[in-house]
Amino acid sequence: MSTVILSLDEARDLSVEILVCHQTSTENAISVSEALVAAEVDGQKGHGLSRLPSYAAQSASGKVDGQAVPQIVARAGAAVRVDAAGGFAFPALELANRELAVMAPGMGVVAAGIYHSHHFGQAGYHVEKLAEHGLIGLVFGNSPKAIAPWGGSLGVFGTNPIAFAAPRKSEPPLVIDLSLSKVARGKVMTASQSGDVIPEGWALDAGGKPTTDPKAALEGTMLPMGDAKGAALVLMVEILSAALTSANFGFEASSFFTPEGPPPGVGQLLIGFAPGPFSADGFSDRLETLLTAVLDQPGTRLPGQQRLQNRELARLKGIEISSKLYEQLMELRRLPY
Amino acid sequence: MSTVILSLDEARDLSVEILVCHQTSTENAISVSEALVAAEVDGQKGHGLSRLPSYAAQSASGKVDGQAVPQIVARAGAAVRVDAAGGFAFPALELANRELAVMAPGMGVVAAGIYHSHHFGQAGYHVEKLAEHGLIGLVFGNSPKAIAPWGGSLGVFGTNPIAFAAPRKSEPPLVIDLSLSKVARGKVMTASQSGDVIPEGWALDAGGKPTTDPKAALEGTMLPMGDAKGAALVLMVEILSAALTSANFGFEASSFFTPEGPPPGVGQLLIGFAPGPFSADGFSDRLETLLTAVLDQPGTRLPGQQRLQNRELARLKGIEISSKLYEQLMELRRLPY
Repeated sequence: MSTVILSLDEARDLSVEILVCHQTSTENAISVSEALVAAEVDGQKGHGLSRLPSYAAQSASGKVDGQAVPQIVARAGAAVRVDAAGGFAFPALELANRELAVMAPGMGVVAAGIYHSHHFGQAGYHVEKLAEHGLIGLVFGNSPKAIAPWGGSLGVFGTNPIAFAAPRKSEPPLVIDLSLSKVARGKVMTASQSGDVIPEGWALDAGGKPTTDPKAALEGTMLPMGDAKGAALVLMVEILSAALTSANFGFEASSFFTPEGPPPGVGQLLIGFAPGPFSADGFSDRLETLLTAVLDQPGTRLPGQQRLQNRELARLKGIEISSKLYEQLMELRRLPY
Repeated sequence: MSTVILSLDEARDLSVEILVCHQTSTENAISVSEALVAAEVDGQKGHGLSRLPSYAAQSASGKVDGQAVPQIVARAGAAVRVDAAGGFAFPALELANRELAVMAPGMGVVAAGIYHSHHFGQAGYHVEKLAEHGLIGLVFGNSPKAIAPWGGSLGVFGTNPIAFAAPRKSEPPLVIDLSLSKVARGKVMTASQSGDVIPEGWALDAGGKPTTDPKAALEGTMLPMGDAKGAALVLMVEILSAALTSANFGFEASSFFTPEGPPPGVGQLLIGFAPGPFSADGFSDRLETLLTAVLDQPGTRLPGQQRLQNRELARLKGIEISSKLYEQLMELRRLPY
């Protein structure tokens, strides 16, 4: 496959330029671009520059309001409610993040509920920022329907990621980031394109039966990780990220990809813990004790280590994208909307 | 199997009597007994009256301080730190629950970290109480080592339950309660006693290899639900319930069963959300919309429904325990400590 290498600055500038000429405000374009480049750098290409064509089309069509200014619409002592205002998720999560970082030391625990929101990309990105402020972060988000209720056959819930981050003494934050489907839908798409079968246990067909045919799987639903227990976690995340925040549920949300239709309007719940009040400042040492007990065993590694290696490499060598995507982006940069 | 039926009052009184004559204060004995009877009523027999002999022995030996008075040792705006003081977990969680219910409406989100704690039984019990106060509850707890880090062979983490509860409009709270091992260790014990093999995927032997031999599994470790993703959740729960609270980790904690050794000293993190500030009072209706979308599909049911049926039945018919356990309890009641 022919590829093109971009420096991080080039990738960011190109992304901003494309979004701005597709009716996104400069401020929002910068926020979105930073998140896309960060995902690309971390090797999470599904949340990286490949999203730009659909993001640009959604901003141009008005499905995403690229000019939206997220607002804090309600407050309690330790909680804020953030209206993403039908815009991109990243500016709303940045606002939530800044607020929580200020509130957390006095409160111990803080949370932001975000609604009228959109695809929030690499979930770990948002909690890693909280961890850089010394907080333990936890985030739940929902997404358009992909998973059926346990025993059912029709998609109700999204793949509903959970991400967690904890600050470390002299290392980058520990980040756990997982969606609750057994595998990403992208893997099924890849198998469908290459004509491969998929392992049983990944997906159900439209009738709710297990299938190894990727085409049948794409018309059906994804199975949750961990079977019935995982399905219960999917429901929990849907309640926390969408029922609690009054956002749209997975079965009500429009696609994150196509420019048609109403805004997806999904939700996120971002939680931060300041360790001090809970641990009398013992947290950092205790965390290292635990992680040492893990790493002392042969064959183990901490979650997110591949991501850190990818990041290191991207800082040295830049970002590699397919020539096809590069040409598409060059074209989008020229389009006068 | 020969069995004995006890009314709920008889079960509670018997439990209190046994604990009190094994050096537990009346107040603590009542708190523990209510939780054990509730678990029994819900059909969670592993967290029910079967625990009494080991609880009584631990209180008598001093491994659990039956006279302990849990204390709030630190506060921030929305957080409390609770020292369970080496006593039973239930009085400490009750204290935390009462505090959180008072704090939550003004704060939106509140949390209690509990340390120097013990077996907290049916995890859903604690969050269901929060839901009865109109809060969404989330609890994480750790337990003595049973699960190895992903890729390793030695137990570091507990089976680390997650429980969640949400208040409903005109139904009992929705409760999700799951441990993060693929199956409960008790199932392996049962297979070991009956001489059956266990399915692959449940457990590893002491060398970290998959095994279908229950005896080898009991010397090894339990596998997490959801493979590597589940293992990451196990680590997350260990950090939230023990690193954040400065409690003992699974690999540091003594057994919840034997009367020897130091106190287990595990931890719990209890979180409550008041829906109002997050949802402008739309939560109840939105939750019903979601649950209706689930139940509209044939073959589905909500988590925790079996528990509610068991509860209904126990209220009508009382609690059924084995004659062997009953005799053991009668004996314990007579022992003068």
